[in-house]
Amino acid sequence: MKIKCPKSNLAAVQDTMDVLKGRWKIAIIAALCYDKMRFSDLQKEIEGVSAKMLSSELKDLEINQLVKRTVLSTQPISVEYELTEYGWTLKKIIEHLAEWGIRHRKQITGKVLEY
Amino acid sequence: MKIKCPKSNLAAVQDTMDVLKGRWKIAIIAALCYDKMRFSDLQKEIEGVSAKMLSSELKDLEINQLVKRTVLSTQPISVEYELTEYGWTLKKIIEHLAEWGIRHRKQITGKVLEY
Repeated sequence: MKIKCPKSNLAAVQDTMDVLKGRWKIAIIAALCYDKMRFSDLQKEIEGVSAKMLSSELKDLEINQLVKRTVLSTQPISVEYELTEYGWTLKKIIEHLAEWGIRHRKQITGKVLEY
Repeated sequence: MKIKCPKSNLAAVQDTMDVLKGRWKIAIIAALCYDKMRFSDLQKEIEGVSAKMLSSELKDLEINQLVKRTVLSTQPISVEYELTEYGWTLKKIIEHLAEWGIRHRKQITGKVLEY
C-alpha cells in the first residue's frame, strides 16, 4: 500500500524554508546565537552584507518574532539585536542543517575524488 | 567571552539549503519517501508541476546523488525514480523542518489572533 505524504507537512517544511531563505538570515541567526549584538557589530561580523540588506533581513526576522530589537540610549543612539526565546528554537534546526551539509560535501567530494 | 560561529558551519547550512531549494524538490523527495514512482505518476502526485520543471528538479536531485533514475523496458519505455540510500538521510531533516514549520504557524497565527 502506498502511503501518501500529508500535504500539510509539505507546507510546513516550506514555511520553515521561507523563514530561513535569503542570503543573510542564517548568518545573522548564527551570529546572534552566541551574543546580542549592535547593528554596526553585526555588519562587521557578517562579511559582505550592506547596511540596507542587513536592516531588511533583520526586519523579516523581527516580523517572524525570532529577533528582538532594542534601542539603547547611548550617545549616539545605538540599536541592539538579540534572539528571542522563540528564535532559540531555530538553533537545533540550524545544527541539523549544518550536520547534513558537512556530510553532503564529504559525500559529493568523496565521489568526485574516486573518479 | 564571545564565541564566534565557525564559518564552515554556515557554509554547510547553506549547502543543505541549496540542495533543498527550488519550488518542487521537497515535494519530490517527500513523494519518493513512500514509494518509487514513474515520471508520469510523480507528475500526477505533485500538483502544478510541469514536465519540464519536474525533469529539471529530478536531474538536480540525481546530480546530488539523492535520487536514482531507472529506465524500464516496458512498452512504451518508462522511467522510474527512487530515493537512494543517501537520499533517505534527508528524511530526518525534512521531518525537523516540518515540525518547526507547524510550530511556527501556530506561533505566528496565535499571536495574530490575540491582537
